[in-house]
Amino acid sequence: MKIDIQRRQIGLNFKDGNAELRIWAPLAWQVLVLSGGTSLHLEKEDRGYWFLQTNKIQPGDQYQLKIVTQESGIEPVLRPDPATLNQPAGLTGPSKALDLAYAWTDAAWQCPDPEKFIIYELHTGTFSHKGDFKGIAEKLDHMLALGITAIELMPVAQFPGGRNWGYDGVFPFAVQESYGGAKGLQELVDSCHSKGIAVILDVVYNHFGPEGNHFADFGPYFTDKYHTPWGQAINFDDAQSDGVRSFFIENCLMWFRDFHIDALRLDAVHAIRDFSAVHFLEELRQYTDQLSASTNKTFYLIAEVDLNNNRYINPFETGGYGMHAQWMDEFHHTLRVAAGGERIGYYSDFNGVDHLAKSYRDAYVYDGWYSPHREKTFGRPALNNPGKQFVVFSQNHDQVGNRMLGERSSSLYRFELLKVMAGAVFCSPYLPLIFMGEEWAETRPFQFFTSHTDPGLIEAVREGRKAEFSAFQGEQEPTDPQSLATFEASKLDWNKVGTGKHQLMLQYYRQLISLRKNSPVLSKLDRSGLKAIALADQNCLI
Amino acid sequence: MKIDIQRRQIGLNFKDGNAELRIWAPLAWQVLVLSGGTSLHLEKEDRGYWFLQTNKIQPGDQYQLKIVTQESGIEPVLRPDPATLNQPAGLTGPSKALDLAYAWTDAAWQCPDPEKFIIYELHTGTFSHKGDFKGIAEKLDHMLALGITAIELMPVAQFPGGRNWGYDGVFPFAVQESYGGAKGLQELVDSCHSKGIAVILDVVYNHFGPEGNHFADFGPYFTDKYHTPWGQAINFDDAQSDGVRSFFIENCLMWFRDFHIDALRLDAVHAIRDFSAVHFLEELRQYTDQLSASTNKTFYLIAEVDLNNNRYINPFETGGYGMHAQWMDEFHHTLRVAAGGERIGYYSDFNGVDHLAKSYRDAYVYDGWYSPHREKTFGRPALNNPGKQFVVFSQNHDQVGNRMLGERSSSLYRFELLKVMAGAVFCSPYLPLIFMGEEWAETRPFQFFTSHTDPGLIEAVREGRKAEFSAFQGEQEPTDPQSLATFEASKLDWNKVGTGKHQLMLQYYRQLISLRKNSPVLSKLDRSGLKAIALADQNCLI
Repeated sequence: MKIDIQRRQIGLNFKDGNAELRIWAPLAWQVLVLSGGTSLHLEKEDRGYWFLQTNKIQPGDQYQLKIVTQESGIEPVLRPDPATLNQPAGLTGPSKALDLAYAWTDAAWQCPDPEKFIIYELHTGTFSHKGDFKGIAEKLDHMLALGITAIELMPVAQFPGGRNWGYDGVFPFAVQESYGGAKGLQELVDSCHSKGIAVILDVVYNHFGPEGNHFADFGPYFTDKYHTPWGQAINFDDAQSDGVRSFFIENCLMWFRDFHIDALRLDAVHAIRDFSAVHFLEELRQYTDQLSASTNKTFYLIAEVDLNNNRYINPFETGGYGMHAQWMDEFHHTLRVAAGGERIGYYSDFNGVDHLAKSYRDAYVYDGWYSPHREKTFGRPALNNPGKQFVVFSQNHDQVGNRMLGERSSSLYRFELLKVMAGAVFCSPYLPLIFMGEEWAETRPFQFFTSHTDPGLIEAVREGRKAEFSAFQGEQEPTDPQSLATFEASKLDWNKVGTGKHQLMLQYYRQLISLRKNSPVLSKLDRSGLKAIALADQNCLI
Repeated sequence: MKIDIQRRQIGLNFKDGNAELRIWAPLAWQVLVLSGGTSLHLEKEDRGYWFLQTNKIQPGDQYQLKIVTQESGIEPVLRPDPATLNQPAGLTGPSKALDLAYAWTDAAWQCPDPEKFIIYELHTGTFSHKGDFKGIAEKLDHMLALGITAIELMPVAQFPGGRNWGYDGVFPFAVQESYGGAKGLQELVDSCHSKGIAVILDVVYNHFGPEGNHFADFGPYFTDKYHTPWGQAINFDDAQSDGVRSFFIENCLMWFRDFHIDALRLDAVHAIRDFSAVHFLEELRQYTDQLSASTNKTFYLIAEVDLNNNRYINPFETGGYGMHAQWMDEFHHTLRVAAGGERIGYYSDFNGVDHLAKSYRDAYVYDGWYSPHREKTFGRPALNNPGKQFVVFSQNHDQVGNRMLGERSSSLYRFELLKVMAGAVFCSPYLPLIFMGEEWAETRPFQFFTSHTDPGLIEAVREGRKAEFSAFQGEQEPTDPQSLATFEASKLDWNKVGTGKHQLMLQYYRQLISLRKNSPVLSKLDRSGLKAIALADQNCLI
């Protein structure tokens, strides 16, 4: 199997009326596809791939894979396609064959340079009452009026049940059915482009969700070389890792090519443990560039990375992995401390305006300093990286939702202080990101919610959540992640938008964004002329 | 504790008649030093260090450290100093205070540029009948006549017993007592420099030996983030790793500053697992450069690394870790296959002259190719790295000694073929290294030997060795590593040197080296004008 940027090579594709199915299953002795009562053998290719061309599977048909191992006494297992595009009956049911062809109307669309990004992060399930892509499409005029140039969708890969942040997704190629599936996402992207809005998609390449993950039946997707917060690491550099790397490279190319996504936000890439000579992210950028060149559209890669190592965002020429930009949590942390927030956990490393001034000047706060919280010297300077390589925010899904009660800044800080915090973000020489509802000071929480089906897992997540917050609980209990009420309580309340202080805040955000866009001193993200001076005794930054 | 390139800050030092003792023991509640019947408390400093200045310890005195933990019911342990310079009674006995001051006579010495290196790798214990540094010093005229410009000592850090390759060393700062200790090494280096020979020392920063390793009593020297062939990895990037990194940086500086070592050969740096923003090797190079600048002597770092990733040897400006050079095993592997050697294990990846031609041209053979043996795509091109960044050989301690019977090439290949193999090394655009005795086609083996004291470990090593070779054994048994006879059999037989074919081979090597040194086409290691053409059907390389 050789990656072809023009066309997906793994999973199920349609070509000239035939279905082509390619599965990476180096551990299998035989691989069969079961569909509509028939059972067909796949043929073995090089390096663990299995292939079948057939006219017996048509778009809309369901299919399952039968993995037969050579060891006697082991019953063959029936599994969904790891690269399935659709799981109509959930994670463990059959896969459904889809033809991703779509009548795009966005031929004229060109994604703006990231320097122009005003990013709006949203969670599809709780953004609108409908909780799906259509619910987002209906609000695009709200985005336009606000001045947003790019929406960022939290992960949409198929997850267990109907309620999940998206980081428990198991099938990276399947768009969550309850959100509207593949076609629904294509329609949303087309709509966004017709209104001049770019679409960033959050993807998770560092782990698979805990439920419905049977990838180990197919091949060495995991390695015990490393430990991660999620257990065994995904195999990016051990024997047979080519198959795993190709799986995710194909995924990335699919979003750009077949869904017209403009940029990917790569979740927690520090958990992608790779000592290969060519880092996975570097390879991802190489393929992304090939696709950009062949389509005349530029696609972008934005990494969430927590290492203060500009190797991730440096260009290839200086030994970098070539990510176009990265999230910068430190700006958030020190901004919150400056605003009077708690100084526990990772916040304990930050002192407020002094560090905020450093972040304005140097991007990373810890760029070779000793970090008491991490108990080690941390980071390296990123002085020559332009401002457009850093995404900053005063809140995001994690910083809100990982609080015990999921309180937004609007429940924690005075109204006037919210404005100052927004000002700090929009006056920064970095790419601003706001979290849905922030623009009208939404007071509803954004809590951690799941809809797992495995009772043991449900209980483990519940207990894990309690343990995590045991030190802070006092009289309060964390909300139950599995409860429908937790999800419902986290939905935005659009009825507030036009009322009282909420309307005021929305006006403020609109004007702030407009100011940012129209004044060259704020919209040119060149840090070289910037001076940031902290007056710590007045908690003030000039 | 702040590293001072002028003076060692950890372990025991003498300054103005006082002893200064600094111990990194972040896990301790109290640290005491016991010496000559007295017991003194060390004072706590920042970040886990403990310090004492005292006139109660003099050079030659023995001392032990008492580590008291706060947990009740745990008996305090008595341990040697992790940075001990001398262990007169073995690994678990007391440490001995040494003053490293030495009356150097090599003020005029300047190490030549590595481009001039003709390297002679030797194992102190088996190189001479004496088995110590004096035994080496007596043979320096042999080296000079041969044309050697640098000797490379296999590790000399204190190991269990008197017989060991050196990779089971536990105390990186203590020179093996049976070799002649610290003073013996200083004398050897001084002699070498007086004869114009540079000294390269092999150091092991990727693991500690299995016997006498009680470092975990002091602090988090280990992390379970990674697994290595030796179990838990040394902690180069986890919490409190600063103390571990400083330990090894101090070690490196000591060899250069206090022993006048010219270059370090860093053992298996691919097992130094470090995802920090500043890689440990990069930091090591920074300190090495500081010391070079302050002494007006240039010190070099040569890495053994098995990743075909030129990031290790690239300069800082292009995102490299700045190692001056690296070992290149692939050249050896494909040379051996070209010579008709077995094609099992890692040799299976190499086809002989075709790959040898590639190695001549491109250094790495697998530079982005799929490696069947590793089952993954491996390496990246190193086209712009000059030839002087690669050390090549037709045999070395590993390639000889890791065979079941430790046979040298002289027992495996025809005499004329040995000459061809040497020619291949000395005509390469890389730094040539020969393994002791190779120059006279020594026929004695170089076997794996140990002198552990722990019976369980002795048995485990024995069984491990048997298991390793079980597939190849046939009627033969691997030699017993723990047996004195195995060690004795591995000693060079200097009586051969002037006799028969051995004398012929020595003459050949002398002429080959002289040719290399005197013909600009061989001594300029610029690969840009090089052409290597393989004629596979004639097993011939032009």
